Amino acid sequence: MVTQKPVIVLKFGGTSVGDVSRVKLVADIVARHRKESPDSNLIVVVSAMAGETNKLVALAKSCVERPNPREMDVLLASGEQVTVSLLAMRLLEIGIPAKSLLAPQARIATTAEHTNALIEGVDSERLNRMMEDGTVLVVAGFQGVTEDGDITTLGRGGSDITAVALAAAANATACYIYTDVQGVFSTDPRMVKGAKLLERVSHEEMLELASLGAKVLHTRSVYFAMRYNIPLVVLSTFAGALEPGQNGTWIVPEGELMEKPIVTGVTYRLDEARIMIQGMSPDISKISNLFDVLAEKSVFIDMISQETVNANSVNLSITVPDENSLTALETIRAMVPELGAEGAMIDRDIAKVSVVGIGMRYHTGVAARVFRALAKERIDIAMINTSEIKMSVLVPRKYCEVAVRALHDEFIDFDVATSEEAA
Amino acid sequence: MVTQKPVIVLKFGGTSVGDVSRVKLVADIVARHRKESPDSNLIVVVSAMAGETNKLVALAKSCVERPNPREMDVLLASGEQVTVSLLAMRLLEIGIPAKSLLAPQARIATTAEHTNALIEGVDSERLNRMMEDGTVLVVAGFQGVTEDGDITTLGRGGSDITAVALAAAANATACYIYTDVQGVFSTDPRMVKGAKLLERVSHEEMLELASLGAKVLHTRSVYFAMRYNIPLVVLSTFAGALEPGQNGTWIVPEGELMEKPIVTGVTYRLDEARIMIQGMSPDISKISNLFDVLAEKSVFIDMISQETVNANSVNLSITVPDENSLTALETIRAMVPELGAEGAMIDRDIAKVSVVGIGMRYHTGVAARVFRALAKERIDIAMINTSEIKMSVLVPRKYCEVAVRALHDEFIDFDVATSEEAA
Repeated sequence: MVTQKPVIVLKFGGTSVGDVSRVKLVADIVARHRKESPDSNLIVVVSAMAGETNKLVALAKSCVERPNPREMDVLLASGEQVTVSLLAMRLLEIGIPAKSLLAPQARIATTAEHTNALIEGVDSERLNRMMEDGTVLVVAGFQGVTEDGDITTLGRGGSDITAVALAAAANATACYIYTDVQGVFSTDPRMVKGAKLLERVSHEEMLELASLGAKVLHTRSVYFAMRYNIPLVVLSTFAGALEPGQNGTWIVPEGELMEKPIVTGVTYRLDEARIMIQGMSPDISKISNLFDVLAEKSVFIDMISQETVNANSVNLSITVPDENSLTALETIRAMVPELGAEGAMIDRDIAKVSVVGIGMRYHTGVAARVFRALAKERIDIAMINTSEIKMSVLVPRKYCEVAVRALHDEFIDFDVATSEEAA
Repeated sequence: MVTQKPVIVLKFGGTSVGDVSRVKLVADIVARHRKESPDSNLIVVVSAMAGETNKLVALAKSCVERPNPREMDVLLASGEQVTVSLLAMRLLEIGIPAKSLLAPQARIATTAEHTNALIEGVDSERLNRMMEDGTVLVVAGFQGVTEDGDITTLGRGGSDITAVALAAAANATACYIYTDVQGVFSTDPRMVKGAKLLERVSHEEMLELASLGAKVLHTRSVYFAMRYNIPLVVLSTFAGALEPGQNGTWIVPEGELMEKPIVTGVTYRLDEARIMIQGMSPDISKISNLFDVLAEKSVFIDMISQETVNANSVNLSITVPDENSLTALETIRAMVPELGAEGAMIDRDIAKVSVVGIGMRYHTGVAARVFRALAKERIDIAMINTSEIKMSVLVPRKYCEVAVRALHDEFIDFDVATSEEAA
């Protein structure tokens, strides 16, 4: 039996393979990795060319009103088929042994939930066997195959999930996510000039950052990487990808972090709405009934807060995704009598601003600093939500940018000083 | 065990699924067949959208100089993936149970000769099982899968071959080839106004017509249909395909023909060149050596004729595909000394005009009528080639059209009278 070589997974998104010149660049990046890690085998995962998936969806919708999900998946899966074959051709042309694999060939087994399938397993032995002679495997991201041989797709963030699943199956030393940004920033660099490229964050922090608004990775893939302890690296396909020393952001198990800053990143989301139910009965069974009804309508509730007016009356506030907010409001208004409430109001003009940091586990006083920083800018906080490693506040949307800057100034720009002070 | 229902195969080419409105039309044609033959199961084979394959080839060539054949096949196979899923969606939307199948799902097993694979078998039991509940199977044409799970394509005429192979495997009652012409004509309708749509021809005639220049079907698919006794029907997707009574051309086993006209069709080819070797030795071993050398250079020889000058000298003429004619000429000129010849000349300005008819088996005097008809127009015949059911003559290219018309007038327009005369 041959001893298994270590495996590195590289993933390139849609903009990274957006045209032929970029496919050539990607081949060069693969070549660089191969040269830098001659003792490792490489698995390369690619998405469809940027815009291609949207084009296919539009094509289907011009043909039928409601595309059948099984057939939609067959249609969508053609997108990656183009990019894997082009990249494999290009690698072969520059002298690198390579082979494209579609999901059924790579045996990426999924559930049968078309357009939103979950990966159940990967035949890693088969992949290892195919790599034995040093062949670079170019695998179609975003797609899978059911037990019956039907083609599935994985939904949003699907190609990242493919990459992480393959990395987990192959016990990869790292999974590089090449994309159109340099890495993960301490906050939105379009909003705050001083936003810093983060060198290392923990999986858990990244999970919070992703779910709180950092768009660089989808939560599902971060969760997968965390569960299987796979280091993820987010870095740019374009900025100096062929020169050494471009490191991007490493997302690693917490134990591998040297420093644990209190706040790693400041994020925001503008896609939630707040619904306030005034003067309702504090009866817990009534509140839980309300939440059941909303769940039945597939309304996801994010923040919840309750303010006691008197012994017989509370004001309840929740936030929900803005796209469901009118459905939620209607549902709640219809329940006003049975909730014993006075009425319900909606505020769609809000922003959720969050600070995230693994160091919050070990430091107190974060809430006080958040309040002080926002008070200095005269920003009212409508709701608050906290977890072990994050704190979110709801503010009027027009103050979003000011709030993000204030919190970034407070925590990130004075990060080193603060850590020393606290130590 | 369920008694197997009869199966009908329908095939739609690239122009028939060229855009979304045509995909809808194709779905309606499938619905019409289903209504007309409620006791039959349907298999529908589709090509990629017209132009799509060329676009993919151009994409590959813009990426690499010499695309790897295995990867080229993965790329090309994405074309039919789009059309099968769109058509299946559309069928479902109009209430017809349908399911798309790619080559690996339909288990269309081929050899591993990428870009030009040969079908080795189809898992007909599996197809029958999938059709048990009346589901229409929408199968990707042109593609197959090797034993190792690699994707292959079948080369020119590939989708027709898929359709005929599935028809053979399912022992179909007929295989309908829907295309952009009304059927097979007695000659090129653009050249001869009186060209007739043929109602019924034999497989063997169609094989000759196809190889002699009628472009509606590729010889490989006709050969397959002949071998497995599958009636083929060539008809238009556009002209009245939704009304009853559009019959196109039926291509059937010879035994099913009621009438056996002497000449069914007149065809022509302009893509050959003639090479004449003057005054060479009549030594048969030298001639056979010449043919061996040309075969090694992959030069296909079509017509051959030999004219004796005297006991020590013959003039040998051959025709070869024009695209190889300069290679052939060069090769032959280099062999002039060893052939004991005086020299070699080329004539690229020729046309091969052929008459084809199963009735030639039973009638004599066809050659005399061909000579007489061409002589009347003062057309010289440079070479002649005959088989049991066809006769080809080589004429100067400028006389091609006149020759085709003269032969069509001679045989087709007076067909009935001639048949009676001969009977």
